[in-house]
This record gives sequence, structure tokens and C-alpha cells, in this order.
Amino acid sequence: MNKSVCDVPMRTSFPVPERVDRKNNPEGSVISIKGNDIGGKGVIIIAGPCAVESKEQLFETARKVISDGARILRGGAFKPRSSPYSFQGMGEEGLKLLNEISSETGMPVVTEVMDTRQIELVSQYADMLQIGSRNMQNYPLLKEAGHSKKPILLKRGMMATVEEFLLAAEYILSHGNEQVVLCERGIRTFETSTRNTLDLNAVPMLKNLTHLPVIVDPSHGTGLRWMVPAMAKAAIAAGADGIIMEVHYSPETALCDGQQSLSPDEFAILMSDLKKIALAVGRDIL
Amino acid sequence: MNKSVCDVPMRTSFPVPERVDRKNNPEGSVISIKGNDIGGKGVIIIAGPCAVESKEQLFETARKVISDGARILRGGAFKPRSSPYSFQGMGEEGLKLLNEISSETGMPVVTEVMDTRQIELVSQYADMLQIGSRNMQNYPLLKEAGHSKKPILLKRGMMATVEEFLLAAEYILSHGNEQVVLCERGIRTFETSTRNTLDLNAVPMLKNLTHLPVIVDPSHGTGLRWMVPAMAKAAIAAGADGIIMEVHYSPETALCDGQQSLSPDEFAILMSDLKKIALAVGRDIL
Amino acid sequence: MNKSVCDVPMRTSFPVPERVDRKNNPEGSVISIKGNDIGGKGVIIIAGPCAVESKEQLFETARKVISDGARILRGGAFKPRSSPYSFQGMGEEGLKLLNEISSETGMPVVTEVMDTRQIELVSQYADMLQIGSRNMQNYPLLKEAGHSKKPILLKRGMMATVEEFLLAAEYILSHGNEQVVLCERGIRTFETSTRNTLDLNAVPMLKNLTHLPVIVDPSHGTGLRWMVPAMAKAAIAAGADGIIMEVHYSPETALCDGQQSLSPDEFAILMSDLKKIALAVGRDIL
Amino acid sequence: MNKSVCDVPMRTSFPVPERVDRKNNPEGSVISIKGNDIGGKGVIIIAGPCAVESKEQLFETARKVISDGARILRGGAFKPRSSPYSFQGMGEEGLKLLNEISSETGMPVVTEVMDTRQIELVSQYADMLQIGSRNMQNYPLLKEAGHSKKPILLKRGMMATVEEFLLAAEYILSHGNEQVVLCERGIRTFETSTRNTLDLNAVPMLKNLTHLPVIVDPSHGTGLRWMVPAMAKAAIAAGADGIIMEVHYSPETALCDGQQSLSPDEFAILMSDLKKIALAVGRDIL
Repeated sequence: MNKSVCDVPMRTSFPVPERVDRKNNPEGSVISIKGNDIGGKGVIIIAGPCAVESKEQLFETARKVISDGARILRGGAFKPRSSPYSFQGMGEEGLKLLNEISSETGMPVVTEVMDTRQIELVSQYADMLQIGSRNMQNYPLLKEAGHSKKPILLKRGMMATVEEFLLAAEYILSHGNEQVVLCERGIRTFETSTRNTLDLNAVPMLKNLTHLPVIVDPSHGTGLRWMVPAMAKAAIAAGADGIIMEVHYSPETALCDGQQSLSPDEFAILMSDLKKIALAVGRDIL
Repeated sequence: MNKSVCDVPMRTSFPVPERVDRKNNPEGSVISIKGNDIGGKGVIIIAGPCAVESKEQLFETARKVISDGARILRGGAFKPRSSPYSFQGMGEEGLKLLNEISSETGMPVVTEVMDTRQIELVSQYADMLQIGSRNMQNYPLLKEAGHSKKPILLKRGMMATVEEFLLAAEYILSHGNEQVVLCERGIRTFETSTRNTLDLNAVPMLKNLTHLPVIVDPSHGTGLRWMVPAMAKAAIAAGADGIIMEVHYSPETALCDGQQSLSPDEFAILMSDLKKIALAVGRDIL
Repeated sequence: MNKSVCDVPMRTSFPVPERVDRKNNPEGSVISIKGNDIGGKGVIIIAGPCAVESKEQLFETARKVISDGARILRGGAFKPRSSPYSFQGMGEEGLKLLNEISSETGMPVVTEVMDTRQIELVSQYADMLQIGSRNMQNYPLLKEAGHSKKPILLKRGMMATVEEFLLAAEYILSHGNEQVVLCERGIRTFETSTRNTLDLNAVPMLKNLTHLPVIVDPSHGTGLRWMVPAMAKAAIAAGADGIIMEVHYSPETALCDGQQSLSPDEFAILMSDLKKIALAVGRDIL
Repeated sequence: MNKSVCDVPMRTSFPVPERVDRKNNPEGSVISIKGNDIGGKGVIIIAGPCAVESKEQLFETARKVISDGARILRGGAFKPRSSPYSFQGMGEEGLKLLNEISSETGMPVVTEVMDTRQIELVSQYADMLQIGSRNMQNYPLLKEAGHSKKPILLKRGMMATVEEFLLAAEYILSHGNEQVVLCERGIRTFETSTRNTLDLNAVPMLKNLTHLPVIVDPSHGTGLRWMVPAMAKAAIAAGADGIIMEVHYSPETALCDGQQSLSPDEFAILMSDLKKIALAVGRDIL
């Protein structure tokens, strides 16, 4: 028998950036959003519409998801759209609606900032700032997020390696803000049957390398509503600290991402399934 | 508010090949390997070493995995290796060892065929024939597999779309063999921290499109032993009908893929965790 | 003979955004930077260091490249870096140096803007604003670029499709600025022997779809100095309207991208080779 | 100024396999196909239909391409098709037609082998054996090609790294056959506007690492007839030793790959353009 070394192609290994390194906090960081912990024993559910479209749409959706167990409301007021002719979001009017429903329900709100000039404004209305995939390497924005007092939800760029994702988080920590939650939301590959390829390998990899909490977005990670439940379950089984999902009170009429948004009824059913998976991995849904 | 259509980039949709189409068997096909069903309510576990290296290695590993609940033994006698200077497998001697331990334990065996000329030989010793990733589009081999009476384990090419994967299966069915099990084993992407990107999106997608059973290989899908448990759990949560894993009685000395092989003790622990996930999704481990 | 349709997998086709569509200007747009035309019969050469590091470095490099035929000077004052601990550029001090050498030599200057808040400042010193790969989908920045009077050099995102690249340009045009030059600079793929995969297919594809000029960056497209000449020649043969290259008076000591920067002597030799290729395709070097 | 090392992500470097290593033959190997040298000063043109479809189709196309300067005829008798329902080639009948036109014209013939069992048969009729992209890691086939006396045209797998491509060639050399020509034919990426992404970076990279000749296939590399001329020119400018192209006497009625096949008239025009590029890089068309 011809004895020889294994020919698994060697892949790049890399130094973990110093502040995000798990060594600094082997237990894992817990980021609290108005009393809702991300990164602890409980698994957090963040839900809401892709974009804020109207008071009725937002409020009705928010009341449904909160009653079914979501702990944080998502909804975009400033929307990054591939085409300049697509709906760009309601802007400050949308922020005010988010703030109003948040005050009414006590549910904290996460919403996207796309521009350094928006951070101050958005911070007046939101409890957590999202930096979206297309801005994961927008370094001026990361630096400003580092100067913010708000927790940051940092989504992985659709083209970003795990190393680059950690370096982007390091930008925020190194500028002074340690409250960062990482979100895997699908990467771009050759596969075309799904909108993105949800890289769940990244969940245990990130949990191993960094102390920051890691959540998963199966809505963008699949692009298909009927696949969201399977992949939300898989994400929790893989070790995710939470799920962020698009839910719309009427997905067929959504101005954005309707084909990947759950209806409130679908969301309610999913919540009970997620609880079973969480228990099976020794956790619970927050 | 500027109303406009959603700008999710449209992705290719494709016609499902006729024989693999789920419409032909909405309940899903069940493939039985010596009484072990793949595709039914139970989740099947296939385990064993990457390559057959010696009688001691194979037999000791096999006895361990069977005692912990694996139902089918895997092990390569003919190995596809990137380098001509790597260990190429024990060949027929390896097949004989597989057959011997199979007779002793009653556990059926799956092993790889790489060449049309090997099918007859391998069929004398094995219960199921594996067509590996690098041969997913080896059409003469697919045609011969179609003429075989043995069940086929068809692994997704590391560069193959879901459409191409189904077309490869269609080759086998259209040549007469309907006993095909599909295996997602990771695709090649830009990410380098893991050996491959395990595409769990493919699990619900395939289950939706085809009646064929779908299993997952987290060993190749991650390339890292410590990630196998998390991704095996995620695969079952996503709806996989089984898991195929590399287990080696002494991973440190393995001639092939040691860094992604579980030790028997790790495998035993994982089996009890997988049972919990299977129950959480309304199934059981076979 | 079994007659059947061809099985080339169908790929996505897409509507060309209205303002960038070649139909609006079948001859092709010519963008003039202080009298240096991009998109006409002549092929333009843009050269200079990755980053402005010092007066000596910039001025010495600039004088060399101008004497060898470069028509526009490149050099970064604000640098997007993966790591927060890497050199981030000289900022306004760098802009002043660019402006000083530009005044001295009459050579126009292109430099990067990364933040909406930088546009006004950079516009005081530069003749052309570069939007880098990581900001290709930074929509607030694209909109501000659309309000600018300066010509824009828009680099393709490293994981952007041709469709998304054209939509990004459409953002700029639809906000009022028609002076946009597109730059192919390599995409991210599974290949690791080069820094990026230079997608020269994109050159004839873009020239066919849009009236905007298209240039190529073989420095980022390869990441390797010794490959730059071959790929610069290939780019012109493929139909590019210009080349942008990194040249450093002392690549070994560069603070950024030294391994992909040409020395002035290498640049001089390349210029004479490029002239031959330009003539072979019926053009000339400007 | 904050001095720091450059943050270009480090990419994998790899050991060049021993027999293909350029060190063994710094001048570069020249492979002669019936007196037509590949890898010398001249650039070789290989042309012909995707598949042999009929005597008339093959003979008429062959006579045209030979009269316009092609030196080797290509044409598939055994065709690897994604779908089992697509035309699979004429088989031995096609080989006989290739042999007949070759005898008539003196033009050598290259055709694909897909199965170890076909090598002997195909070798009776062809002057050079092609191993296609889908079989680049079909190791039994590579080994048999290594035992053959015929020169081998080895196409890069659509998702193979440069390292894996060289290892595949090493299989052939290490089994005894040193007459191997490498062919870049496009890789699979996220881009969907072209059939594949032609990786011309691979041309200088391969020429640098190995002594084997390197040719380029712009037909498969683009999938679009109108892009073939631009990319054939680019390939020669990048340093390719030859071009292999699909030409069909009536592309509209082709059974395979009609949309990427040149008409004879388009081929004739392209040949004169390629000559200019070859001269511009100090070579000539053979």
C-alpha cells in the first residue's frame, strides 16, 4: 500500500482580529436590546417586514409577530435597491412609524443605516442599527457605527469571506462599540435555484472564532418563502443565537421581497417548530 | 411613495426532468438497502472510514459505528485523489474486506465506483454503489449505473447546480435504475475557511422537486471534524433523509481525510444528539 | 440520429437599464477629462500609485508615468482597507499633493471617494472621482455622484454581475451625471492562485450593452505584478477603452499593493507593447 | 502616517507537480500533431463543429476552416450532455467520418473520449484525444490517457483551480504520456450573462508554472458567437499558444452549441484579425 499524505487541498487559515477573538470572552458576549439578550441561552427571533410601507402594514404585521413570540421588530426605512427605479423606502416617515409602534408595544426596533449622514437621525428612532450586506465593507460607515452607542447588527457581505466579516466587525469594535451582532444571510455562488446560498457552515465557524453573537437570516438566504421554515430550523440546529425573518401581513402585495416573506400564519406555525429545535439543542426560544 | 416592482434579481428556473420529478411519486421514494429504508420516516446514518486502509482499521471502525447505530457502512476501495502521488485505495483487496465485515455484521456496504469497467467487480462485493462528486457528470458511468441492479448513491458535483444534479440522476433512471439516493456534500465557493460550502438550501429544494431521497455529507461539506456535529444536526433539521459521515478508529493516522473524520467516541455522542433533532422534526433515527 | 434541442444551460438575460443602454448612443459616449478622451478611438492609460504615501513617492512616480505616456494620474488619499489596522491613506494631505503635482504637470487626477461626506472635499482637488469596488452598491454614494459635476470612474464590485454593474451606473446617470466610465477590475471566484479573476468577457459584453466607456484594471485583476503586462495587452485586444494600472517608484517599499505595482521601468516597456496591440485592433494609445 | 503592512488577502500558493513543472523544460514543450507544432513560436488554430452531425455538415465545415487557415480539425463523436435526452453524438460512425475527411485533407483530428473503454477505438481514428471539462478529474480516464501514445488535449474543469488542473495533467505525465496540451475554456462563477467566465489570467499563470502548451477555447468560454472574436484576440494577446473554436457551416441548424459557433465567413474574417494580434506579440499564426 502506497502510504502518502492526504490530498485535501489546503485552504487559507487566517489570524483572528484581536478584539473580536473569542479568546477575549470564551463564554461569548451577550448583547442586550432593551432587555432582550442576544448570545445567551435563549434564541432570539427578530421579525417584521422587509420595508416599512405604511402605518397599517407595519402596525398590523408588528402586532402579529409580537403576539407569536418575536422579540425585536425589523423593518427598513432606507432601502438599498439594485435599481434606482425601485421603491427606496419611506425614509424618516418610516422611522417615525417604527418608533411609534415600538413605544406602543415595548418591542425594540432594528433598522438599516446606509449612509454616515443617517446615523444620527436613525439613532433617534431605533434601538439597534443594521449595516446591510452591500455596506459590510463601507469603512466610513463601520467607523461611525463604532462611535455610536447603539448596538449594531452587521450582515455578512454576499461576497465576504468569514475573515473579511470578522475584520468588518473589528472596525466597529476598534472604534469603540463592542455591541455587535453578526448575521449570516447567504452568499453568492454559482447556484441559481435559490436567491443566495445560505452558508450555515459559517455559524459554527464564527461561534468558534469570535465571542460575538451570530444570527441567521433565512429570508435572504433562500429568497423563497416556503424554504424559510426548513432553513430557520437548520440554523438553530447549527448553533445560531437567533433568526431574523421577513414577515408581511400580506406578502402578495409587498413592495419589496414579497416572495421571501412569511405570512403571519406561517410565522406562527414556524415559531412552535423552532421551539422544538431549540429544546433539542439545549436552548429555548427567548 | 414611489410604488414599484420588487428588485429581487430573477434567478433561473428550470423544468424538472421527467422521471425524477416529485409529481411521479408525491409521497417520496423509499430505497431499501438490505432492509434499511432511505427516504421513509426514519433518518438513516451511514458511517465508516474515508478509505479502507487495512483489515484492522476497517473492522474496528465498522464494529464501533454499528454498535452506535449506523445502519450502512461506507469505505472507499477505489479513491479519486487530486494528486497521482496520493494513496489511491486498496482496490479489490479493499472490496473483499468490506464484504467480509458486511457478512460478519449483516451491515450493508456502500463504496465508490470510478470507472465503467469497475461496476461489475464492485457489484460483487457491495450493496450500494457510490458515484462521487468528480464523476457526477461522467455520463458513461451514469448510464452503466442505470443498467445496474444495485442502488446508487449519487453525490452532487462540487460545481453542479441543483438542475444539473437532477439531470445526472435522470440519466440513471432513464437507463433503467430507479434506486437513486442523492447526496449534498458541499459546493465550491469563494469561501476558504471551510473545505466546501455545505449547501443545505439544496435539501428542501431537492425534496420539493424530486421524489428521490436526499442525504447530506457534513464531513466533506465542512472538511473539519469539529464542525461535523453542528452540520449533521442542521442537515436533519433542514429535512435530510440521512447523514453520511467519515469515522475512523484513529483519525490522526488516517491515510485520507483524517482531519474531517470523527473518532468513534465523537460519533457515539453525536448519535444521541441527532436522535433529539430527528424527534424535534417528527422523525426518528433508523 | 436522435435530433434534439441543444442543452446549453440557459442563463439569465436581463433588461438593460434605460439611460446606460447603448441604444441611446450607438456610437458610444466619449468622456473627456481635461481634454483626454475616454471612449474614443484612442486607448487611455491611467497610472500611479495605489496610495499617496509621501510627496517624494507621488511626485517621482507621477513624473515617470507621464513621461512614458500615461494621461491621467491615479492615487488614493482615502483607502478602503479590509483591516482597521492597515494604512488608511493620507486624507486631505494626500489630496493636496495630488492637486499640486497635477498643477505642475497638467495631468488630471482621479482619486477615490468612500463617503458621501467626502465628495465636496475631494471634488476641490480631483478631476475625476473613483467609486471603488466595495462601494459599487453604496447607493447614497452613487446618488451623490449623480449630483456631482465631476466625471465618475465606477469600478465593478468584486461579486457584482454585469446587470448589477449597469444598474449601479444607472443610479449615477438617473441622478443627473452622465459622465461615467466603467472599470472591470476582477471578480471573486473559487480560484486562489490570483487575487481576483479578471473577467475580460465583461469588456465586449459591456461595450455591447452600454454606450459608456469601459476600462480595465489588470493590477487588481491579477494581484501580481508580473501578470499585469499580459493582461493589459489582453484587455486592449478584447476592446477596452483604457487601462488603469498601479505604478510605484519603489514597489518593494509600498505601503499598499506593492506586489501588484509595476516599477517605472516595467511600465515604460509595457507602454510600447500596448501600442502594438492597440494598432493591431485599429486603435492607438492616446 | 500610520505605517503598516499591506492587507491584500493572502491567497493559497501551492507546490507545482514535479513532471509538469516548467523547471524541467524552461523553453517550453512543443507537441507536434502530424507536423503541426503546439507550443512553438506559431499560434495554432483548431476549428470545427461542436459535434459531428452528418457527412455533409462535417466535410463542408472542415473544408472551409482548412482553407482559412485552421490546422487541426475538432468535432465530437461522443458528446457529454447535461440531459440524457439531448443528442449524444454519432459514436463510431462519427469517428469514421472524421477519419475520412482527415485522410482527404491531411488535416489531423482531435475528438473527445469520455470513457476508458473508448480510448482504443477513438485512437484508431483520431490524431489527438480530448479529455473534456467534466472529466478533468476522471482519474481512471487520465491514467489510461497516460498509457496512450496519442497526444492529449486536456480541458480545464469548469470549477477546477489552476493547481488541480496541473495535478490532472500530472496524472497523465506520471503514467507515461508527456504529450499534453492544456486548454482554458472558462470557469463557473456567479456571473450569468455569459455561459462561463473565460479565465485568461490562467494563461500567463500556467505558462509560468508549466512547460506544457496552453490554448484557449473562447466558444465555451463565452457561449456567445459574437463574443468569440474579441476573446480569441485577447487570448493570443495574453500569451496563448493556440485557439480552439467551434465553427459550423450552418450554426442556426446545429444540433449542439449553435449559439456559440461561428459561421465559416465569420471564421475567415477572424483569422485575419488574429494574425495581426499574433504579430503584435511577436508570434505568427501557424
